[in-house]
Formats: sequence, structure tokens, C-alpha cells
Amino acid sequence: MARVVVDVMLKPEILDPQGQAVANALPRLGVSDVTSVRIGRRIEIEFAGDADPERAREIADKLLANPVIEDFTIHLDGAAAEVA
Amino acid sequence: MARVVVDVMLKPEILDPQGQAVANALPRLGVSDVTSVRIGRRIEIEFAGDADPERAREIADKLLANPVIEDFTIHLDGAAAEVA
Repeated sequence: MARVVVDVMLKPEILDPQGQAVANALPRLGVSDVTSVRIGRRIEIEFAGDADPERAREIADKLLANPVIEDFTIHLDGAAAEVA
Repeated sequence: MARVVVDVMLKPEILDPQGQAVANALPRLGVSDVTSVRIGRRIEIEFAGDADPERAREIADKLLANPVIEDFTIHLDGAAAEVA
């Protein structure tokens, strides 16, 4: 059993109202040194046998990310990120 | 400028219908060796000065995660995960 993690984030030029709402709430918590909050998705894919990052990339491309507005990165759980 | 990443995932005992829907779609893509897909959130918090994981933990606890159904982990961007 091996796990591949796909991180899907909005492209930097796309507005993120959800993250903005969190950022706007921070001063009420007394936090003033945060410049930006961006919220994306983390998807954990468990493979029955060996982890297959190429397969995970295909799944991310077809099912998990919208390439018009989102970028994704794929990495083995615990390993360094590999940019898609 | 430093970035802290908060990963919020449903607790293992909580059903994840969104991930299940993706897992159910995989055989149609010809993928048969995936045993589970879980979908959570990845939040990137940019600090103006040094990264402050303790502050990020406070933000996650109060604003980002629902402790009844979700667990979160906090790590500096690029560093190893630290369990919350």
C-alpha cells in the first residue's frame, strides 16, 4: 500500500475569495503579520501495490484539477513535491 | 516572506463521499489499483516576516478545521509534516 498526494491550488492570478475571507478575519484574532491565505485541495490516493505517480498525474489531470484555473503538484507521501 | 502550509483532512473514520465519487469513477479511466481516495483542503498562509507555525496552528484551530470531523497538520513549505 502506497500513497500519492495531489495538491491542487488555484493559479496565482486567480482570485481566491475563500482564502481572502480567512485573511480578512485574522485581525479579529489579533493576527496582523499574514499577507495572504490561499485555499486549495489535497487529495490522497492510495494504491493497492506500488505508488504510481504517473497514474496519479493522469487522474489529477482528468478528474481532480481544472487546468484553466488550477495548478497541481504530485508527490509521494512524505517526499518532496514535484511540480506538474 | 515565509509560507506555512496547513493540510486539513477528514478523520479516517468519517466518510468522504467526494473522494468516494472519484474512486468510483476510476475504473472508467482504466485504473483498477487504487484502493481509496480522500479529499481534504490545503491552505497556504504567507507571513510578512518569519513563518510562525504556532500562529498558523492557532488560525487552523479557530478558522480552518472543524475538530469534530477533521485533523490538520502544519508544516513549513518544503519541510516535513508535523502532526497537529
